[in-house]
Amino acid sequence: MAEVATTRRSRITPEREAELYEAVLELLREVGYDALTMDAVATRTRSSKATLYRQWGGKADLVVKAIRHGKPFSIEEIDTGSLRGDLHAMLAAEDDCTMERNSALMRGVAMVMHHNPDLREAFRNQLLDPEMHGLRAVLQRAIERGEVRPDCPALEFLVHMMVGGFATRALLEEQPPTQAFLTSYVDAVVLPALGVSTD
Amino acid sequence: MAEVATTRRSRITPEREAELYEAVLELLREVGYDALTMDAVATRTRSSKATLYRQWGGKADLVVKAIRHGKPFSIEEIDTGSLRGDLHAMLAAEDDCTMERNSALMRGVAMVMHHNPDLREAFRNQLLDPEMHGLRAVLQRAIERGEVRPDCPALEFLVHMMVGGFATRALLEEQPPTQAFLTSYVDAVVLPALGVSTD
Repeated sequence: MAEVATTRRSRITPEREAELYEAVLELLREVGYDALTMDAVATRTRSSKATLYRQWGGKADLVVKAIRHGKPFSIEEIDTGSLRGDLHAMLAAEDDCTMERNSALMRGVAMVMHHNPDLREAFRNQLLDPEMHGLRAVLQRAIERGEVRPDCPALEFLVHMMVGGFATRALLEEQPPTQAFLTSYVDAVVLPALGVSTD
Repeated sequence: MAEVATTRRSRITPEREAELYEAVLELLREVGYDALTMDAVATRTRSSKATLYRQWGGKADLVVKAIRHGKPFSIEEIDTGSLRGDLHAMLAAEDDCTMERNSALMRGVAMVMHHNPDLREAFRNQLLDPEMHGLRAVLQRAIERGEVRPDCPALEFLVHMMVGGFATRALLEEQPPTQAFLTSYVDAVVLPALGVSTD
């Protein structure tokens, strides 16, 4: 009984959770991943470090969950009736300003992932795998509708194609990905590679 | 006359240049870009710092030229008669071991480019622009042969597609790009997006 009470006490409300994630993203933008400390998160959110560790285990998990919390929807809920419609709707869900903010954040995190296995694992488990799961659901419906052949070799490269669009523009062209850019990339590259006509 | 003599004295032989670039790449693998100093290059290559600065201007230029020197060929010299043949030949020019070494080096450099505008500019001028120039020549021949439509929208995204293949595999899958992987990526994504049949 004592244990149940402890578990209950450690649970936080969704409002409090949202507040906390927002503070983590703020800190991340201000100082970057490497300089962000659990102490700073505790101070800014007026929480105890013990609560933070109990609830999230560590910095990598807390940061990646904060990023995920900012995502407005789950990809697999999108179902417009065509693959092109689904991919365009996915891109339209974030306005350019949000996309630019998230893209700057993700670039910073991607740089750190390079030398931080904890963050890489949290990123893969909490963000990439769920997104890939959602994308696979979208592709599976396209296959069932007969839009994409089930043995289409580009199916296994969807994430590579998409990352190429996001990351190359940010890194080499020093421009944030915009909806207009990504939509034309999907039409010019992703859909033709999957054998879907865009005419 | 005195000036001519000075200019001649400051010129270095191709052998000496190759030796110097190899030492820079060695140092880069050992300590990374940020920790690499012109002093260390001067010591390891028994040159004077004045010579290094006179010849290369600075660290960013020296490093990027050293990387470029390791590239075994110029893309536009490849001319097999088909776009697929040209792209495969381009990938076959580096064995997996070289590709893995270069990929590790490039990942390190890409991370630093993120916060270093000098390196980003040198990278673009010395490496990316010449490669893009070569790729455009290869694509232009494919257009002239009638393999690719001149208004194909994927033409402007070739670098994004390719970087997606290289970088996503290295970053997310923690595997170096291999010839086998990149060749299947070219067949599954790049050629279909350009409207070239791979059957």
